[in-house]
Amino acid sequence: MPGVASGVGAVPVDGSGGPDPARVFDWVDRRAELRARAGLTRVTRPRSASSPLLDLAGNDYLGLTRHPEVVAAATSATREWGAGATGSRLVTGTTELHEELEAELAAFTGAEAALVFASGYAANLAALTALTGPGTVVVADAYNHASLIDGCRLSRARTVVFPHRDVAAVERELAAAGSARALVVTDSVFSVDGDAAPLAELAAVCRAHGAALLVDDAHGLGVLGGGGVGALAAAGLAGAPDVVATVTLSKSLGAQGGAVLGPRRVVRHLVETARTFIFDTGLAPACVGGALGALRLLRAEPERAARVRAVARRLADALGGAGLAVSVPEAAVVSVRAPSPEAAVAWAAACREAGVAVGCFRPPSVPDGMSRLRLTARADLTPEQVARVVEVVAATAPAPAAEGGGV
Amino acid sequence: MPGVASGVGAVPVDGSGGPDPARVFDWVDRRAELRARAGLTRVTRPRSASSPLLDLAGNDYLGLTRHPEVVAAATSATREWGAGATGSRLVTGTTELHEELEAELAAFTGAEAALVFASGYAANLAALTALTGPGTVVVADAYNHASLIDGCRLSRARTVVFPHRDVAAVERELAAAGSARALVVTDSVFSVDGDAAPLAELAAVCRAHGAALLVDDAHGLGVLGGGGVGALAAAGLAGAPDVVATVTLSKSLGAQGGAVLGPRRVVRHLVETARTFIFDTGLAPACVGGALGALRLLRAEPERAARVRAVARRLADALGGAGLAVSVPEAAVVSVRAPSPEAAVAWAAACREAGVAVGCFRPPSVPDGMSRLRLTARADLTPEQVARVVEVVAATAPAPAAEGGGV
Ligand SMILES: Cc1ncc(COP(=O)(O)O)c(C=O)c1O
Ligand SMILES: Cc1ncc(COP(=O)(O)O)c(C=O)c1O
Repeated sequence: MPGVASGVGAVPVDGSGGPDPARVFDWVDRRAELRARAGLTRVTRPRSASSPLLDLAGNDYLGLTRHPEVVAAATSATREWGAGATGSRLVTGTTELHEELEAELAAFTGAEAALVFASGYAANLAALTALTGPGTVVVADAYNHASLIDGCRLSRARTVVFPHRDVAAVERELAAAGSARALVVTDSVFSVDGDAAPLAELAAVCRAHGAALLVDDAHGLGVLGGGGVGALAAAGLAGAPDVVATVTLSKSLGAQGGAVLGPRRVVRHLVETARTFIFDTGLAPACVGGALGALRLLRAEPERAARVRAVARRLADALGGAGLAVSVPEAAVVSVRAPSPEAAVAWAAACREAGVAVGCFRPPSVPDGMSRLRLTARADLTPEQVARVVEVVAATAPAPAAEGGGV
Repeated sequence: MPGVASGVGAVPVDGSGGPDPARVFDWVDRRAELRARAGLTRVTRPRSASSPLLDLAGNDYLGLTRHPEVVAAATSATREWGAGATGSRLVTGTTELHEELEAELAAFTGAEAALVFASGYAANLAALTALTGPGTVVVADAYNHASLIDGCRLSRARTVVFPHRDVAAVERELAAAGSARALVVTDSVFSVDGDAAPLAELAAVCRAHGAALLVDDAHGLGVLGGGGVGALAAAGLAGAPDVVATVTLSKSLGAQGGAVLGPRRVVRHLVETARTFIFDTGLAPACVGGALGALRLLRAEPERAARVRAVARRLADALGGAGLAVSVPEAAVVSVRAPSPEAAVAWAAACREAGVAVGCFRPPSVPDGMSRLRLTARADLTPEQVARVVEVVAATAPAPAAEGGGV
């Protein structure tokens, strides 16, 4: 084995005695080896456009991503505006179509204003960094999405993590924060188990302490509230002057992108200060158009939201009836616990073998370290399809999982 | 004026004596006021699809975003795959089209492998966070793009900033880093002035010290090197085992998205560990298809790259000849210094009034605090259009700028 050259980095030397450039990234192979031993290898698996799999893995909750009207809206936006936005939203990247989408998103959710980003991830980074900073306190749910956590890290605010859904803990942290500016941050529907945050209670505690509330409604928009208006409206918080929401355009709206919804002054503040708004290319016209098409379809067919919730409940009830450790779905996400990462991978593979695609979540993508299958309901699943999914998931279950309690 | 309630945050009280929720975001208005006084207000300005302005503000360097073949590639991808990718790249978000684009991007730039992200911003966050960490050292150019800076902040690595383009300073920092794992990070072409990093020299210094080199080629892909193969190939670094590049699909390729290009082991590492890959929805099919269409067009018409560089040089020469303080363009970006933020805004407005759209960069978007106009060359600008631009920019110049020296 070549030795380590002293003073020139931890890279083995090459034939000439200098560090060997071919070995600079040797360390990533050692990491891969460790992941493989823990059953945590991940690979991308390309799907074909004509895949015969029944999809319960994606987040196309309302079945809109391939809907003819959504596809037509996306393609006509591309023909009218081109394949890209061509620049930052502050330079050339704001088209009239972006403003149309912002106006309709705000109207639909009852917010004063909306601002569209290239992704929900970017919207979360923007909201957290622009609304906090050194000297402020962020109070964050332990199960928040990775993009919110990265936003906390970027914000340079002091971040306090509270136990999942624990309103009393939030109250204590806000009291302890005293006169420092505070922001409470939570997912509306948590992405792994599909359980919901106690939004009304959190808002009340924030109000008592003069804190702001930031809610990531990625899994609530299009699913929760009458006609899918989202978790904030469902909790009576639409248009509140002290609450900000983020959403993604990539789940129920079937496209890509994200948005921040809130008071007009907050949106203006983001336009002028949020780095992932200022230094990122505007969302592509196809995605703006597609999301707008989906939003209009949802307004015309508001029953889609209730339908996806009913499908999720039916799925969870039947899987629970089959003896599996199922979460109680508040929106479209249903999760089923697996005894180990390896068992989860094998279970998902067996489902796929039987024609059903389900998600497989393992550490570090699960906040409690427990691996599970993640099934997502879709508004357009038939009762026969739901029955088939339950049959496949139950028949392929590893033995110990069938004995587990509820999540 | 209402007082500040003690112990309940710095928010004035309402009629009931509790903090007033309507005043939670009062502070953002005070910030807006400060920006307005400094001449730093920013607003989005929606453009119409039929804008008659001559565009020298966007980053559509090769004139491809509305090219019929690129539009057709984007729309046919939408029709085949839908308006969205429906999930994370590790769940349902990898289509066969994503893998096609990755293979062709790698082949085009001479990299071993490529990985596509939802934006160039996300690609930069991924590369920086996945390739560093606590205990490692990042050595970063002072003029790096905001997304690289955010990546440094997220990485939790010790970050040392070196004076712009100063190879000797990099050498000193790497020597000082000793046996710690080190990553040198730079833009290939800097986004504000369009000047180039000394890539070959940086690579040599990295090699001598066993460090890795990360290059953001957002403004080089499609512009630099024979046929637009990018800055790495132009510097003889294509396929190097110790160099990683990031690119965006939103500038010369006319779409949206980003990619990391590098050794296969690095790409695998990103698939398994990069949070903006794992926890972000895959790039929309329209953008994947559009970028692939643009890449194929560029392969068929490699002269576009040389053409945009020639247009940029012609622009800079003529603007310099008119007495303006112009940067020396290494790629497509040309910048012209303005005496103040207010003067830059007025100058850009006067250009627009005369039918020419140019970018206006002010603090904090300029690393040296100097405001400027930013003009971007396009491969499809005619000599008459270039002459017209020069005439308009010179005629509307504020007096002091015309007296300044070169940047
Ligand atoms: C709760 C939550 N927030 C934010 C995001 C990020 O949104 P996007 O994929 O649009 O970047 C996701 C998933 O992707 C999510 O599940
Ligand atoms: C140098 C540089 N890197 C990265 C980015 C981010 O790329 P994207 O807009 O695709 O997110 C940009 C501009 O947007 C840039 O100029």
